[in-house]
Parts: sequence; C-alpha cells; structure tokens
Amino acid sequence: MNQLPIPFLAAPAYAHTDAWLQALQSAMPEEKIVAFAALSAAEKANCTVAIVANPEPADLRQLPQLQWVHSVWAGVERLVTDLADTGLTIVRLVDPQLATTMAEAVLTAVLYLHRDMPAYARQQQQQVWQARPYLPARQKTASLLGLGALGEAAAQRLRQNGFAVCGWSRRMKSISGIECFHGDAALTQMLGNTDLLVCLLPLTADTQGLINSALLAQLPPGAALINFGRGGIVDDSALLAALDSGHLSHAVLDVFQTEPLPDPAWQWRHPAVTVLPHCAAPTNRSTASAIVAANIRQFRRDGVLPASVDRVRGY
Amino acid sequence: MNQLPIPFLAAPAYAHTDAWLQALQSAMPEEKIVAFAALSAAEKANCTVAIVANPEPADLRQLPQLQWVHSVWAGVERLVTDLADTGLTIVRLVDPQLATTMAEAVLTAVLYLHRDMPAYARQQQQQVWQARPYLPARQKTASLLGLGALGEAAAQRLRQNGFAVCGWSRRMKSISGIECFHGDAALTQMLGNTDLLVCLLPLTADTQGLINSALLAQLPPGAALINFGRGGIVDDSALLAALDSGHLSHAVLDVFQTEPLPDPAWQWRHPAVTVLPHCAAPTNRSTASAIVAANIRQFRRDGVLPASVDRVRGY
Repeated sequence: MNQLPIPFLAAPAYAHTDAWLQALQSAMPEEKIVAFAALSAAEKANCTVAIVANPEPADLRQLPQLQWVHSVWAGVERLVTDLADTGLTIVRLVDPQLATTMAEAVLTAVLYLHRDMPAYARQQQQQVWQARPYLPARQKTASLLGLGALGEAAAQRLRQNGFAVCGWSRRMKSISGIECFHGDAALTQMLGNTDLLVCLLPLTADTQGLINSALLAQLPPGAALINFGRGGIVDDSALLAALDSGHLSHAVLDVFQTEPLPDPAWQWRHPAVTVLPHCAAPTNRSTASAIVAANIRQFRRDGVLPASVDRVRGY
Repeated sequence: MNQLPIPFLAAPAYAHTDAWLQALQSAMPEEKIVAFAALSAAEKANCTVAIVANPEPADLRQLPQLQWVHSVWAGVERLVTDLADTGLTIVRLVDPQLATTMAEAVLTAVLYLHRDMPAYARQQQQQVWQARPYLPARQKTASLLGLGALGEAAAQRLRQNGFAVCGWSRRMKSISGIECFHGDAALTQMLGNTDLLVCLLPLTADTQGLINSALLAQLPPGAALINFGRGGIVDDSALLAALDSGHLSHAVLDVFQTEPLPDPAWQWRHPAVTVLPHCAAPTNRSTASAIVAANIRQFRRDGVLPASVDRVRGY
C-alpha cells in the first residue's frame, strides 16, 4: 500500500493515545495509523483524513489538504467551536454499543432513584430501619430530553423495564411505545407529568443553559434530574436552588461545566447529589475502532464521506 | 349471606392490620373480614379459614374447626415452625406482581454493583474524579440461588438486560435462556463462574447457613453478594470475613437474622455493605388481596384448597 498514513490527534496530556493507536491499527490492518507527531513533513502536506479525540486546533492547521476528521467520541461541541473557521467536515462516532451502554447507565440511575437508594444510604448512615412507600414503575414517568440514537435506546430500555416513558426533541420524532413531544409548548406539558427527567441532549447554542429555574419549576415537586448529556445544559445555580428548596428530590450528575469537577464545587458535598466522573457511556475502543475503520474504508474505496455533523445545528 | 366471618390474624404490634382489613374486604365484598379480636365465641368455634400475617399461635389454637390459613406473605418459615404440631394447611401468597417487584429490585441491585455505584459514592466522599474500568453486561455473570416464581422472574429480567445468567435450585429446572444447575456438585461449578450472586432462596432446614465460608470461597475474588431471600441463609461471620479480606467486593443485604437490624450490628457500618430495610419486594395489598379473594372464593364454591406449603420442604 502506498497510501498516506492516517494521523491520530489528541490533547497533549491525553492518557489513551497508545491504546487508541493499537485499537485503530488492528481494526484497519490495511492502513498505517500513527500519532500526529510521527508524521513527516510530506505526509502532513498531503494527508486528507485524520482521526481525532479533542485535537489541538494548531495541529490540524498543519494539515493543508485535510478534508475531514473522524471523532472517536459522540460529543463534538468542542470540535465544532475549534473548527468553526475551517471548511473541515466533522464526523462523530455513532456506535450502537455506545447507545446500549448509555441506555444501561440511564436505567441504572432511574432504578437507583425509583427504588430510593439515596434515601436508604442516608438511613444506613443513621442506622434507621424504615421501608419507604413503593410505587410500581408503571406509575412513574421517566422523560427524556433528547431522542437521538442514545435517547431512543434509553427510552426503549426504560419502557421494557415497566416505566411510563415520554421523550422530547427539537424536531418531531415517533418512537413505538414512547409518548413523543417537540417544541417549547409541548416541553412544558411533558415536564408537568415527569417524575424522573433524563437529559441526553447535545450541547449547542439552543441547549446551553436550557435546564434553568423556569424549566425546573415546571417539574412536579419531588421530581429528580439525571444529567448524562453535557454540563453546560444545566444552570448550576438554578439546580442548587431547586435541590436546596426540596422542589427537586435528587440529581444524578455525570457531566459538569468544568471537568474534572473542581474540588470546591458544591456538587461533591450536596446530600441530594450523586456525582459520577463522566462514566455513563465510556467509549468501547474496540467497537468504536471498527466503526471508524468501516467509514474510512468506504472513503478510500469510493471517496464517500459518512454522515457528518451539521455545523449550524451543532451535532 | 349467612357465612361465618373470616378473621385476619397478625402480631399484636402489627401496624397494618386496618389497611389489610380494608383491602381484603374490598376484594371480597361477599365476605365479612374482621380482626381476630372481633370474632364472637360461636364464630371462633366454627370458623374454617383464616387470613394471616405472622399470627400468634395461641390465637390460632382458639379456632378448633380451622382447616387452613392463607398467608398474605410469600415467606412462611415462621408459620411452618409455629404450626408444626397442627394439621393446618398453610397457603402462601404467590403474586405475579410480587415477582415483578422482586425482579426489579434484583435488577436495581445488580446494576448498582455492575455500574460501580458503591465505589463512586466513596469517590464522591473523597472528591476523587476517576472513571473505573467498564465491562459490558454480557461479560458479567449473575447467578441466582433459588428458581421459584421470584427467582425465575429475576433471572429473565437480568437476561433481558444483557447479563449472562445462571440459576441453581434444589430440584432440576429448565428456563429458556438461563443456564440451570441443581445439586451440590453443580453449585460449585456455577459459583466458580459467578460475578454477582443473588440469593432468593426460602429459609428451610436445608438452606439455613447455606452461604457459609466454604460456599463464599468458591466464588472468584471480587464477586459480590445480594441477599434478598432470608437472613438465616447467610453465615454472618463468614460474610464479614469474606468482605474484610476483600475476597467479596460488596454485599447488598435486605434481610437479616434479626429484623429490624439491631443498632450494634456490624452491617450498618461496614463500607462494603449496603443495608436495605427488607424493602426489596413489599407486598402490594391490592393485588395480594385479589389473589387471596380468588382462592377463598374457590374454597367457598367447591371446597377446593389452593396449592399449599409442603411442611417437609418448608415452602
């Protein structure tokens, strides 16, 4: 093969570059996958495709012939911002295994709240033996914000496990067994009937700060929030106020405005918050590499690029 | 109607007698359901059936014509012991809603362990931001001890949610999609391949102390235990030793030798134990009363008793 090598670009401190190089190389034995630093000047001058995980924009500017980048992650809000002044096509990871893992994480958090695990943990600390009232899952409504590949998989999983399930997305969707809403008025309607609100939205100009005090006020008293989307979608001071007043009973948060969550952040110590370290849907390097490989093979064979990110929409 | 009233018998301090009287009465408007204390001497002398929730054996001895008792609970080990010297037929509650609730509780505990929630809670206390390695559910084996109505429903629910599932019962069973074992040698074989051991056994002479140090030693290092059966099945000092040595990573315990779990019990304070106050599968008074009603109607109509507890087997 006399094709150019494909560079993998990540942030300088990224811990998993070697693991990605190995996984991508074994998924594409016909290609040569190299770290960005290993490219020769001639290779930099001519390479057309790169695989990226939070790359340095300055590195990408050294690749004048670059047509597209394939992210190994599903969330690309930083790439969209960093590459706003380029014509580069951005392809994000759409991995069915990722949707399965996220659906499992959502179910775990929903059951954890539905079965009162945070309250029982507090009771254990105080040696209190007291069974709490139980309502069957069919009498609880879990509502998803975001009905993309991840949201739809999560909605189906919750439905299969007995919950009443609603979902909201910007554009109209139709999913069997799920009550689907779209648009601002319908959002209000859905929130009023929601016991467990699950956020799986991408971070865009439209979703930034969407979960604010006005939105939280539309939930019934005692509702709970699960944010597995992006930290920037939640207005943190509105969330803190809703938890402190007791209007919101609990929040399970896997994503934050700043990650890692800094030491003085109130979320670490709030009794009604469960902090997770962005672990809801870890990328499976093996299945992700196979998907990247299939997309690159099609590009090599007939020049066709996979479905790409809409720069205006942001995902 | 000139039928005798049906007494409801419970322990003197039982908090839910009135709620049961109401639920049973509305499920059987054709009968008169009364507290034991409300029976006249003539009614005591002639009544043939009673509904019970941990009754006082002395009360039952005041009913000379009693043929059978219907328990509103599934676990009847105390009734079997208390009524050992009588010829009374014991019918226990077999409620599909109870199996659904238990299956949900088992899934909640399995996901809680599978997704490392106890470890993330410890990390939150220490403000540690660290995602832990993730294995897909299909690479984890959950094994059930006990494959009755509750065990089978739990096994199916775990399988539907992606886990590899095994089950063990004293007598041979066959359940689609579940690897079923029976007998002592097969138990050893199953335990060696178990990541998450779920106990749903009834308490009998055979199961008393079954989960002892020899059994726990057959689990691979790092396995976890969920006991939603009965406290007496676990040898508590063997469990403590296995948790202290790290051989067992965690235990979720809903049942204990003494309930309520007394204040000095080590389980309250052990960092690798989640204590639940016997809340895994609360009886649903409404569905349970409907089942008791159907059984009593059949008895009134043609004298047929429902399937009853085998006194030798103990359940």
